[in-house]
Amino acid sequence: MAASGSYTPGSKRRAADPAHLPAGSRESEMRQRVLSATAELIDRFSYDDVTIDAVARASGVSKSTLYRHWPARRVLVLEAFTYKTNLLTHIEETGDVTHDLHAYLIALTRCLNEGKTASTVANLLAEAIRSKEFSGLYRQTLLRDRRHGFLAILERGQEQGQVRRDADLGTVVDALYGAVHHRLVATGEAISGPFLRRLSGLAVLGCATPDYLERRRLDR
Amino acid sequence: MAASGSYTPGSKRRAADPAHLPAGSRESEMRQRVLSATAELIDRFSYDDVTIDAVARASGVSKSTLYRHWPARRVLVLEAFTYKTNLLTHIEETGDVTHDLHAYLIALTRCLNEGKTASTVANLLAEAIRSKEFSGLYRQTLLRDRRHGFLAILERGQEQGQVRRDADLGTVVDALYGAVHHRLVATGEAISGPFLRRLSGLAVLGCATPDYLERRRLDR
Repeated sequence: MAASGSYTPGSKRRAADPAHLPAGSRESEMRQRVLSATAELIDRFSYDDVTIDAVARASGVSKSTLYRHWPARRVLVLEAFTYKTNLLTHIEETGDVTHDLHAYLIALTRCLNEGKTASTVANLLAEAIRSKEFSGLYRQTLLRDRRHGFLAILERGQEQGQVRRDADLGTVVDALYGAVHHRLVATGEAISGPFLRRLSGLAVLGCATPDYLERRRLDR
Repeated sequence: MAASGSYTPGSKRRAADPAHLPAGSRESEMRQRVLSATAELIDRFSYDDVTIDAVARASGVSKSTLYRHWPARRVLVLEAFTYKTNLLTHIEETGDVTHDLHAYLIALTRCLNEGKTASTVANLLAEAIRSKEFSGLYRQTLLRDRRHGFLAILERGQEQGQVRRDADLGTVVDALYGAVHHRLVATGEAISGPFLRRLSGLAVLGCATPDYLERRRLDR
């Protein structure tokens, strides 16, 4: 964790709380504690080592309670990783699509490059490939939230005349998110600053309005 | 198989033969027969069903011979899928980067959308995620050959003044190949004609020279 030692959401709580329970309820607090403890384990250990036993020890919540709320280890790890990533990819939008897309990619990559986190993401995807049921859950949590993050920036760009109205934003997200995951799970190449700069540049050139591109050229 | 009932390479043999053995040798013929039989099984059955037993029955090659050449089922399936994809993504380049990229994407997708093939690709990736050793093999065969296919088209575009000299072609490949795999293994959305058209359009806008874009605009 770069910013803090534990996942205490503070002002970002509403957007990031995956439990969707009334804040302050006993169950909400327990979930918060478990997700926070699991997220810290995800940073430090590889996927196979983040076991229900380890989470019980780290959170002080009994295994039976854990299993009552999360029917399988992978379900808990998926929710905790989504929770962590939601907190850490919360960026302050400036209203400039190039800047905001790049900031979002940097924040996302910081999560992925942290400690042993890459192992978790790759393994969650592998689990989704192997199980139809888990694949549904993976799409409804992690994938939905990340796509939403990209889309919010691109839609705002559209409203402000920076992104073409006829650009298909889903395809832009596939290219951006797909490229990052491709490096993470397939090629193993570094997801470096220069790569992200080239990637967001490619996406912006591919979907921006001529006006916006001209303005950017003149601003340089 | 759309084009033919079996994987008989004909004139495309040299580029597609993964065995790199003198054509016509006994071993080369055996490998050819096994890879061809395995590729047909991949079209028809899900990944888990393409077993060494099934390949032995379909190819008429003994299990002990198969194991001598391919130490594990996944290694054989990887090689057969690479072999099949190499044959089916052989396109006649026209020299226009937009046309050729799109043709390549269409050919690639035709392989992926065939019968139960998607299950095989996704599962090979899952195996690569779970095993460092297999991940190396995955990169050296399937990934290398696909990236090479994209790069050949983009490099030719560069030579012909269609793709910018300062464009990083590796990033363009990550965006294209990553987006296709993202749909295949993560979102499950259809890899449709309109999607591929938007995807290749995005990539071309993102890396083409102003001259080439202007010429295309005037040609419309």
